[in-house]
Amino acid sequence: MDIGSIVGAVLGWLLVFIAIAMGGGSGFFNAPSILITVGGAIAATLIHYPLPQVMAVVKVARKALFVKEQDYMTLYDQLTDYAVRARRDGLLALEGDIEQLTDPFMKKGFQMAVDGNTMEVLRSVLEDDLAAMQERHIVGQGIFKALGNYAPAFGMIGTLVGLVAMLQNMSDPKSLGSGMAVALLTTMYGAMVANLVALPTAGKLEQRTMEEVALKTMVIEGIVAIQEGHSPRIVEEKLRAFIPPSIRQKTIKD
Amino acid sequence: MDIGSIVGAVLGWLLVFIAIAMGGGSGFFNAPSILITVGGAIAATLIHYPLPQVMAVVKVARKALFVKEQDYMTLYDQLTDYAVRARRDGLLALEGDIEQLTDPFMKKGFQMAVDGNTMEVLRSVLEDDLAAMQERHIVGQGIFKALGNYAPAFGMIGTLVGLVAMLQNMSDPKSLGSGMAVALLTTMYGAMVANLVALPTAGKLEQRTMEEVALKTMVIEGIVAIQEGHSPRIVEEKLRAFIPPSIRQKTIKD
Amino acid sequence: MDIGSIVGAVLGWLLVFIAIAMGGGSGFFNAPSILITVGGAIAATLIHYPLPQVMAVVKVARKALFVKEQDYMTLYDQLTDYAVRARRDGLLALEGDIEQLTDPFMKKGFQMAVDGNTMEVLRSVLEDDLAAMQERHIVGQGIFKALGNYAPAFGMIGTLVGLVAMLQNMSDPKSLGSGMAVALLTTMYGAMVANLVALPTAGKLEQRTMEEVALKTMVIEGIVAIQEGHSPRIVEEKLRAFIPPSIRQKTIKD
Amino acid sequence: MDIGSIVGAVLGWLLVFIAIAMGGGSGFFNAPSILITVGGAIAATLIHYPLPQVMAVVKVARKALFVKEQDYMTLYDQLTDYAVRARRDGLLALEGDIEQLTDPFMKKGFQMAVDGNTMEVLRSVLEDDLAAMQERHIVGQGIFKALGNYAPAFGMIGTLVGLVAMLQNMSDPKSLGSGMAVALLTTMYGAMVANLVALPTAGKLEQRTMEEVALKTMVIEGIVAIQEGHSPRIVEEKLRAFIPPSIRQKTIKD
Amino acid sequence: MDIGSIVGAVLGWLLVFIAIAMGGGSGFFNAPSILITVGGAIAATLIHYPLPQVMAVVKVARKALFVKEQDYMTLYDQLTDYAVRARRDGLLALEGDIEQLTDPFMKKGFQMAVDGNTMEVLRSVLEDDLAAMQERHIVGQGIFKALGNYAPAFGMIGTLVGLVAMLQNMSDPKSLGSGMAVALLTTMYGAMVANLVALPTAGKLEQRTMEEVALKTMVIEGIVAIQEGHSPRIVEEKLRAFIPPSIRQKTIKD
Repeated sequence: MDIGSIVGAVLGWLLVFIAIAMGGGSGFFNAPSILITVGGAIAATLIHYPLPQVMAVVKVARKALFVKEQDYMTLYDQLTDYAVRARRDGLLALEGDIEQLTDPFMKKGFQMAVDGNTMEVLRSVLEDDLAAMQERHIVGQGIFKALGNYAPAFGMIGTLVGLVAMLQNMSDPKSLGSGMAVALLTTMYGAMVANLVALPTAGKLEQRTMEEVALKTMVIEGIVAIQEGHSPRIVEEKLRAFIPPSIRQKTIKD
Repeated sequence: MDIGSIVGAVLGWLLVFIAIAMGGGSGFFNAPSILITVGGAIAATLIHYPLPQVMAVVKVARKALFVKEQDYMTLYDQLTDYAVRARRDGLLALEGDIEQLTDPFMKKGFQMAVDGNTMEVLRSVLEDDLAAMQERHIVGQGIFKALGNYAPAFGMIGTLVGLVAMLQNMSDPKSLGSGMAVALLTTMYGAMVANLVALPTAGKLEQRTMEEVALKTMVIEGIVAIQEGHSPRIVEEKLRAFIPPSIRQKTIKD
Repeated sequence: MDIGSIVGAVLGWLLVFIAIAMGGGSGFFNAPSILITVGGAIAATLIHYPLPQVMAVVKVARKALFVKEQDYMTLYDQLTDYAVRARRDGLLALEGDIEQLTDPFMKKGFQMAVDGNTMEVLRSVLEDDLAAMQERHIVGQGIFKALGNYAPAFGMIGTLVGLVAMLQNMSDPKSLGSGMAVALLTTMYGAMVANLVALPTAGKLEQRTMEEVALKTMVIEGIVAIQEGHSPRIVEEKLRAFIPPSIRQKTIKD
Repeated sequence: MDIGSIVGAVLGWLLVFIAIAMGGGSGFFNAPSILITVGGAIAATLIHYPLPQVMAVVKVARKALFVKEQDYMTLYDQLTDYAVRARRDGLLALEGDIEQLTDPFMKKGFQMAVDGNTMEVLRSVLEDDLAAMQERHIVGQGIFKALGNYAPAFGMIGTLVGLVAMLQNMSDPKSLGSGMAVALLTTMYGAMVANLVALPTAGKLEQRTMEEVALKTMVIEGIVAIQEGHSPRIVEEKLRAFIPPSIRQKTIKD
Repeated sequence: MDIGSIVGAVLGWLLVFIAIAMGGGSGFFNAPSILITVGGAIAATLIHYPLPQVMAVVKVARKALFVKEQDYMTLYDQLTDYAVRARRDGLLALEGDIEQLTDPFMKKGFQMAVDGNTMEVLRSVLEDDLAAMQERHIVGQGIFKALGNYAPAFGMIGTLVGLVAMLQNMSDPKSLGSGMAVALLTTMYGAMVANLVALPTAGKLEQRTMEEVALKTMVIEGIVAIQEGHSPRIVEEKLRAFIPPSIRQKTIKD
């Protein structure tokens, strides 16, 4: 479960509600204004992206926020352990362990190595897998970025609709203030949807993708190095480069 | 027929019309304002892009919205079936099927393979085809993006024209409000054209291009792998990487 | 002569003038405002780009608007015709035709091929030529893009000068409106220069460059394929990929 | 200790405080406004980036500002000295010096060279290290850039909250001015956080990363050239290219 | 001496001063406003870039404006002359001329060629040199671009400080206009610093870098082609591609 995202979301909305409460509190909630801003942004995103991908985005976001963080060190220990045993007893000695693996990507890679595929075939199949995954993730980020761009635009459209309506009915100058206040609400909602929901979620998805790419690249390089029969020392050096130094220094004693 | 685009377009315009109706309803339609915003954006796009390409853009957009979505799984089944038969009976055994193919890209590729062209020639001709297609599609997206940039600009020009006219004839302060309301309409139209029509359509075209590139790349890799005589298992692995996991998991049982 | 650019320019300016005429007509022309906006944008562009290149830009723009459009099909027919004859009679049989060629790029390429240069030398010299041409064209586009960025900036500077002057002399509140109207004119001019002249022209130059690159790449690939002695069928396949499908379908019967 | 950053920070804040003092002084500090701007920007950044990385960013920034600047010339002298000795006495003669090295990157590289690893393995391990470092640094810059983008956005949200509150309670027109003043404060804070803290720090981190990459690339090229047994003259030529010319001219006499 | 930059700078400032003079003239100069805008932008740039590089930027800008323009044709004549003589008398015949060369880059390249270094070593050393030069120039451009981004930001901060001060002291409504006029001055200064100084200078530096890269690439390709013993005709063809066609057509008769 991603604590940072929860802390950030709670903190952000709390601050906005405190600011609203200090500003008098009432009159900041306006259902039609929310409808035009949020609904308009979703409508534009539906035209922009294929329907199945927009519908899949909730699942993608949930995964970004609730899936437990991957662990560089466990992966490092596992791969270097395999390297030592493969060097000592041969690749086939790993066959039993490989069948227990839960990560399908790693399982597939080691199975191909044990099956005797050449390093070129192995690397090409795994890198194709990784590239295809990246391409699909980019769509998920793109949907949130699109929401983050369309929300302020529809906020502005809503404000313009409100301003035009207000300016055309200026018979009662006293209502001017409240009319303008309502008009500005959509701009405010647009900025909030963009900066508290859509853009940060797009960013988190991007970070997750990068992390997953780093971990999967570590797996590819590890399998290839093991298959090529490099010494465990070289495998360790190669893998260690993928671990962020903060994690590395805490756990590896050189 | 692309349901998402239709749902999005209907929803978006409906929301804007509801907002307008709630704002009083009348006075939001102004023919000259529409003319300057939409006409100006089209005029700038005509200078920007060659005439034949601007005129072809309607056909391109219709294709993006109404052509039925391609199907990864059918293509996957077809290519893996060919791989099995080519491995068993030789490439020439596919000759009959190839003549029945409706997709010109795939037909051309398999014909070249059957004709005995080397893998290098085959890949180079098909990749040139694909690259040329991409380059042409990018022009279509570019035209909608240009419309999406010029529309708000001409909306602003229209608003400035209106403001200057209003400020120069301030004899009657009562008309100030309605003058400003009319002036703001072009900005509103510009934002609507950009965010409900031009930019989302450009986005959908981009998605379609990416999907088509993914499918055609899958075809190229499949033909090359079949021609090289890889085992059906390797061909399957290679092709599966191009299928989005959501589709894959629903239909392939590992 | 590029009809699209002319239609676009005439239409765009017409619409703006109609909008102005409807807004009262008088008072929209202000010589000093034009001077600060257009002059300032040109001044900044002169600092930004080398003088000879800024002075050459008028010629570049005229070429983009008035040079007749290149013809994919003529080039395709010519190259495939050469391919057939070179295959039948040898490359030297083309020597007479090559001397008649008017396009210096194609002439140079075929002369090098006939002179017996290797494919590597030939491709490297022609691709260097093409890359150098592209680099020079990018400067032309850059100048119009710079104009399109500086014009709104100087429009804003002019408006700020006008606003400050107006606010400092508020003795007569009646002149407030007309003072502000004049101040806003420079912003309007800036947006018009950018969106009706500079940015669309930069875009048209970019399209022309892309078209020229596509045609010249087609020439390079054609000459190399002919020199390598590929069969006319392969040469045709390679060249056809460079032709936009709309043109292709109208004229080639598969 | 980076003098430029300190001079810049002191100068920037001083200027802003002088401007505030000249503007009357009081009323520019508003705790809730600071909370919504700074707190909101941090909240959005927490959703955007993983928690450990956001928490590590303070350490990263301190390192960028307080770590002493690296020295091209010392590194150059050291590497060329090693090149001379390795050429004369063989690589193993360096073993004693290598154990004294404090820079872990350089130590690892020379140890691998002395251990007889091939040039390919050596270069690949060190370049992986360097690429992984770059990828991690980019996250640090990204966090400050995100802060620099979210701070003005939350400044605008705060201003909109203030404006809406003010417009809804216009009973006392006298309070209008001060209400609007408070509303504008958040926009001002947002611009200050972005342009005096977040964006310049992101920039400094980027510069530091580039410098570190240049120095580490110099180390890689130096080790590889020494291991390959190039003449000291060639090693010198290769290394000199990495030194900025201002430093180079002061110290090297050609 | 770069005439274009001088003409542009004089013209730009003249136009702004004329506009100011027409606006009444007095009250447009405000020392504290200049201080916050220019000083703030410099302060942020000092945090952003290392101190030595910010201090070197004046020298860099002077070089961009006052160093005489390089000459493609002289370089072309010199290199083709060398090509003819090297083909006839051997590379060593050039030794005397090489010692007279004033351009250190060209001298170094020819000396390495004469010393019998292989083409790979030669190209790699010179291209490293060129890449390192480019990287350093990019910092110079970056500093002016940073100034061009921070100046409008501090202009806006200054305006917000002025507006808040004005709104808090609205006791005298008559001073409202002049207060707002002073507040807007910083925005105006920021736009002027950015669009008349910083951004165009960054652009000119970029153009100069591109020109220098083109000339140095021409030198590299020339030396390599001469060393490889290509015929003078091929060397000429290769070099000619680097000359802009406007210069080429004036001076070379094909």
